[in-house]
Amino acid sequence: MAGLKGRMVIGQSGGPTAVINASLAGAVLEAQRHPQIEDIYGSLEGILGVINENLIDLGRERADVLTGLSSTPAAILGSCRYKLTPDDYERILDVFHAHNVRYFFYIGGNDSMDTAHRLSQLAIDRNYDLAVMGIPKTVDNDLPHTDHCPGYGSAARFTALAVRDAGRDSEAIGNVDSVKIVEIMGRNAGWLTAASALARESVDDAPHLIYVPERPVDIDRFVEDVQRVYDRLHHVVVAVCETVRDAEGTVIESAEAGASGVDAFGHPQRGGVADTLCRHIMKRLGVKARFDKAGTIQRSFMLAASPVDVQEALLVGEAAVRQAVAGVSDRMVTLERDAGEPYRCTTGLVELAKVANVEKLLPDEYLSPAGNDVTDAFIAYARPLIGGPLPPYVRLAKHPVPHRVDRRE
Amino acid sequence: MAGLKGRMVIGQSGGPTAVINASLAGAVLEAQRHPQIEDIYGSLEGILGVINENLIDLGRERADVLTGLSSTPAAILGSCRYKLTPDDYERILDVFHAHNVRYFFYIGGNDSMDTAHRLSQLAIDRNYDLAVMGIPKTVDNDLPHTDHCPGYGSAARFTALAVRDAGRDSEAIGNVDSVKIVEIMGRNAGWLTAASALARESVDDAPHLIYVPERPVDIDRFVEDVQRVYDRLHHVVVAVCETVRDAEGTVIESAEAGASGVDAFGHPQRGGVADTLCRHIMKRLGVKARFDKAGTIQRSFMLAASPVDVQEALLVGEAAVRQAVAGVSDRMVTLERDAGEPYRCTTGLVELAKVANVEKLLPDEYLSPAGNDVTDAFIAYARPLIGGPLPPYVRLAKHPVPHRVDRRE
Repeated sequence: MAGLKGRMVIGQSGGPTAVINASLAGAVLEAQRHPQIEDIYGSLEGILGVINENLIDLGRERADVLTGLSSTPAAILGSCRYKLTPDDYERILDVFHAHNVRYFFYIGGNDSMDTAHRLSQLAIDRNYDLAVMGIPKTVDNDLPHTDHCPGYGSAARFTALAVRDAGRDSEAIGNVDSVKIVEIMGRNAGWLTAASALARESVDDAPHLIYVPERPVDIDRFVEDVQRVYDRLHHVVVAVCETVRDAEGTVIESAEAGASGVDAFGHPQRGGVADTLCRHIMKRLGVKARFDKAGTIQRSFMLAASPVDVQEALLVGEAAVRQAVAGVSDRMVTLERDAGEPYRCTTGLVELAKVANVEKLLPDEYLSPAGNDVTDAFIAYARPLIGGPLPPYVRLAKHPVPHRVDRRE
Repeated sequence: MAGLKGRMVIGQSGGPTAVINASLAGAVLEAQRHPQIEDIYGSLEGILGVINENLIDLGRERADVLTGLSSTPAAILGSCRYKLTPDDYERILDVFHAHNVRYFFYIGGNDSMDTAHRLSQLAIDRNYDLAVMGIPKTVDNDLPHTDHCPGYGSAARFTALAVRDAGRDSEAIGNVDSVKIVEIMGRNAGWLTAASALARESVDDAPHLIYVPERPVDIDRFVEDVQRVYDRLHHVVVAVCETVRDAEGTVIESAEAGASGVDAFGHPQRGGVADTLCRHIMKRLGVKARFDKAGTIQRSFMLAASPVDVQEALLVGEAAVRQAVAGVSDRMVTLERDAGEPYRCTTGLVELAKVANVEKLLPDEYLSPAGNDVTDAFIAYARPLIGGPLPPYVRLAKHPVPHRVDRRE
């Protein structure tokens, strides 16, 4: 299909990230270099914008707005979590046909790659020439066949910084708020929760315990883990993924959360794990526990964006367009890490069918045998993604002053 | 008492902030310039370090560590929330006497100023020459007789950035998560919650509604407020203080939270307002609601520290020492804002007795008549404190593409 002439549509899907607009910028700016892409349309609210013919002409946006996308978080076209019906796919091809759309780019995660693949297949069935490319995006970092996912590095940088600072806070006031549980995003994969360890410089630094969906969290063992750290340091910072299961496989959540139902893809809506674990701690250890849950702030906090992540998000957007123009379709752009140092990634390709609805979980070698921490291998993997060292903090030497009065009774 | 020769002790108290260590640095570096201050001791865990004679020799810390304090968050000496007994005050004087401590500096909020004042009074009663100075610190910004409090500007900058980004996130995915409630710190005063408005550029920007402790939150009116914004924008971002009361004066919190008791000063431990409001929304409006609660991250997140706040935190630390050496005692350093532009503050003094246990709430002129937003007067007051403009974000013009297919049935 090389040399297809026609319009292009690009959409953003799933949860926003700090760099999803950088991928949009990369794709749009690259598309402007290829005359066979006649117009560059944006689909508002993900694929819904095509179905409802809510398209905008991105080619008419000001140049400074397009470049400014790289420093603007969340999904500027609007996003969606919508599972298409067979009729929807037909409708999309009708809309594409009416506008002579020959290029479709979808920035998203597992579900979005499934949508893109099905659309690609239908276009082939209908003999409609259409290049379909997936552009990876997810703070969950759970797409397979790519070293990592744009969006992850920035959310990981925020998480590392936030847990470091929450840890310093607990060191300072641990005599009052003894246990702090930081709840971190992640549907079934603990990649982002694991990133809480990236700012740790010594074994006493936060987080002291890390719980991810890949390992069951036995409440008795959890309480023992916390007790052990508390006995040693008198303050405990726990990083826990929003979705963890107990030894019986039941998601740990507040009683009310379960009532909230499922999303459009059938994924259950969870909530309250940190709150629930705090109550266990207060009840069983008799010490105060509180939780921090940055929620959507962690995925969209632009100030903490990783420069590496921003650059790679641009790169995958550009690569998707270059490949499509060269005749590639039904593929997602991947990031491939060079062997050796310094860290460097180039782009590759994978069939959408191999990515659609597949989740890449944390492998065993990234998790400690006890299931409550990460390994050095994980740190080596993830540290380059957050983009350079974190600003240094000091510690006092704390030279003790000799006592001059008697110990108090 | 000018020219008192002896040692100094400095302590940090209450909740940590991003800049409380900058005040410590200011005081220590200033003290090193005054020969009559013979040694500079730090008290570990606030006033408890004096009572337990857990003192460290700050004069022996490396120079780069002392200057690095200004970029290290939380309370590096350790903090406490401890209400002293009459015996404790006597004990403190005993320890001071044994070490020939003639200068005491306490960095903290309302409760800490009360502690400092009582100690000052007892020293006078006991004929013990002691200069006692309070150094203001609180993200709550609720100390009276000062334009604002060091710590507030940085937490306000984080809050403004976080709510802006959470707002962009909601704009993008509001068709799924329609209502987002951001829970913000504040014991009885809404200053930090009000700061959520500081990044707002248009009436449609987040936060769309702001609820503070200074105004009762009637649940029916709250639901109506949310409904009204939802009907207009299809997504709603609410900033709510962790402590708000309903029309009957009852704190809005989860059923479980009330069981957590009170802290050492008798302040009740609250929790769950955002979660509770989310449940009201889901039940009564039938749309999805979620909450973000950055918790301690908001008060200690160094990356978002306001340069103005860091500078002023240093300044109040320096001023406290300079004043004490000049013979001033039983006072807290204040920040006094120059009239006119550009923004500039100098330091002043206020009697500790006038600050101790007094809370400065948001005045009426900073709150909208409906009690669900702030006024331009508040923005004018608070914007200089967050230290310079926030990084700019773009918005698309969104030129619509003309429809070419029929509306779908």
